[in-house]
Amino acid sequence: MTQEQWQSIYETAISWTKEAGENIRKMMDDTYEIHTKVNEHDLVTDVDRETELFFKNKINEKYSTHRIMGEEGLGDVVDDLDGTVWIIDPIDGTVNFVHQKCYFAISIGVFHEGKGMVGIIYDVMADEIFTALNGEGAFLNEEPLPRLENVTMNESLLSFNAGWVMKDRRLEALVNQSRGIRSYGAASLEMAYVACGRIEAYISFNLAPWDMAGGYVLLEEVGGIATNYEGNKLTFLNKDTLLAANPAIYKDIMKEIHGK
Amino acid sequence: MTQEQWQSIYETAISWTKEAGENIRKMMDDTYEIHTKVNEHDLVTDVDRETELFFKNKINEKYSTHRIMGEEGLGDVVDDLDGTVWIIDPIDGTVNFVHQKCYFAISIGVFHEGKGMVGIIYDVMADEIFTALNGEGAFLNEEPLPRLENVTMNESLLSFNAGWVMKDRRLEALVNQSRGIRSYGAASLEMAYVACGRIEAYISFNLAPWDMAGGYVLLEEVGGIATNYEGNKLTFLNKDTLLAANPAIYKDIMKEIHGK
Repeated sequence: MTQEQWQSIYETAISWTKEAGENIRKMMDDTYEIHTKVNEHDLVTDVDRETELFFKNKINEKYSTHRIMGEEGLGDVVDDLDGTVWIIDPIDGTVNFVHQKCYFAISIGVFHEGKGMVGIIYDVMADEIFTALNGEGAFLNEEPLPRLENVTMNESLLSFNAGWVMKDRRLEALVNQSRGIRSYGAASLEMAYVACGRIEAYISFNLAPWDMAGGYVLLEEVGGIATNYEGNKLTFLNKDTLLAANPAIYKDIMKEIHGK
Repeated sequence: MTQEQWQSIYETAISWTKEAGENIRKMMDDTYEIHTKVNEHDLVTDVDRETELFFKNKINEKYSTHRIMGEEGLGDVVDDLDGTVWIIDPIDGTVNFVHQKCYFAISIGVFHEGKGMVGIIYDVMADEIFTALNGEGAFLNEEPLPRLENVTMNESLLSFNAGWVMKDRRLEALVNQSRGIRSYGAASLEMAYVACGRIEAYISFNLAPWDMAGGYVLLEEVGGIATNYEGNKLTFLNKDTLLAANPAIYKDIMKEIHGK
């Protein structure tokens, strides 16, 4: 495909994502009137499924050869990244969605022959959309994001769950060395925050491909690094760990944790 | 003072806070063009001081008998809460302000003879204003916040810094028992999030009176509880620890941590 064709897919994906966000806001307005626990569970299931179905229908109609890997499994059975694959999380940050009614995102990565081409992460309630097209840079609400600058660990904010520290005590060194720890509860947003410099690194021990695909493309466009926690390439075919970081901090973390 | 007079102070304080927020956004726009580290440091100092001075001038002019306790120390030397005292943090979440250019807040508590009367917490960049007037309820962007509902620990999101877990290992039990841990890096916002149910508890080991004063009034209006970590009443005269929580979770945390 030509760069013009990718530009078109990129713009189409952004437009669909905004439309999907609008639909989610409407569904929330309609349903949050009745807020019982059963209802909350139904709401997230409904919104997840309807949003994935929305993308599936759009993609099937416009790009019939593209395949879809989604959290809800309404798309295709995808066990390789041949051709063009849309990797979609209709609601990343499900607990935030149900509990906080904010701080969740639609996350989309479009891969072609294994290469990340388009990344979109949309914080639906804050109306912040992070977008990236391979080779064309990354953007926050259409403003270009600069390349990540060199920083030191003691100038860096890191993001990981307090529970991970209990699983790997080596993370305690990072708590002491860094400027501070944050935790937002939505992997795609936390990757986007690394890409825009709000934090310098994000670590998780349990993510699905659709949690990471959009953020991976964003990070590539600003010079960020995303691998699994061991430093191996992400496959986007299985659950994995994640270390997404500013390159300077990536090196410091690998050295501190793995001594390499 | 009559409730009408307090209503007027409340509305005046809200209006000043919005104006101060607008000024901060302008100062950020003007200054972030040049972003060196020295400049960042100057910016936060300038914005902190100018914002506190803005409130000081307004309060002195309109309420000449009221005293002011502020982070920048431009107000009065306050070592009791006699009469009416405005407790002001012009920028709560200084690290977020400098580093993220968002997720910081103006925090204001107005106390009368030691009693919290008005609470305002303004997330300047998200344009979310949490307000409370003693006896009249709490609001988020003018929408009334409901009284906090009964919840269990495993349904609760808690907020504290990963560093505190290393200072008090008893917090690890809460990590395991709860629905999840968040950390946002701005005490006043985290207290406001307890008040609006985005999280059920917030714990910190090192806060100043101006970090907690606004949030305390908000929490009182929705049936939340805020004491120090030992369960003692906050004095708002010295640095202290904080446990701010939904009442059901407050009890669970006190029992888990202190066995009482």
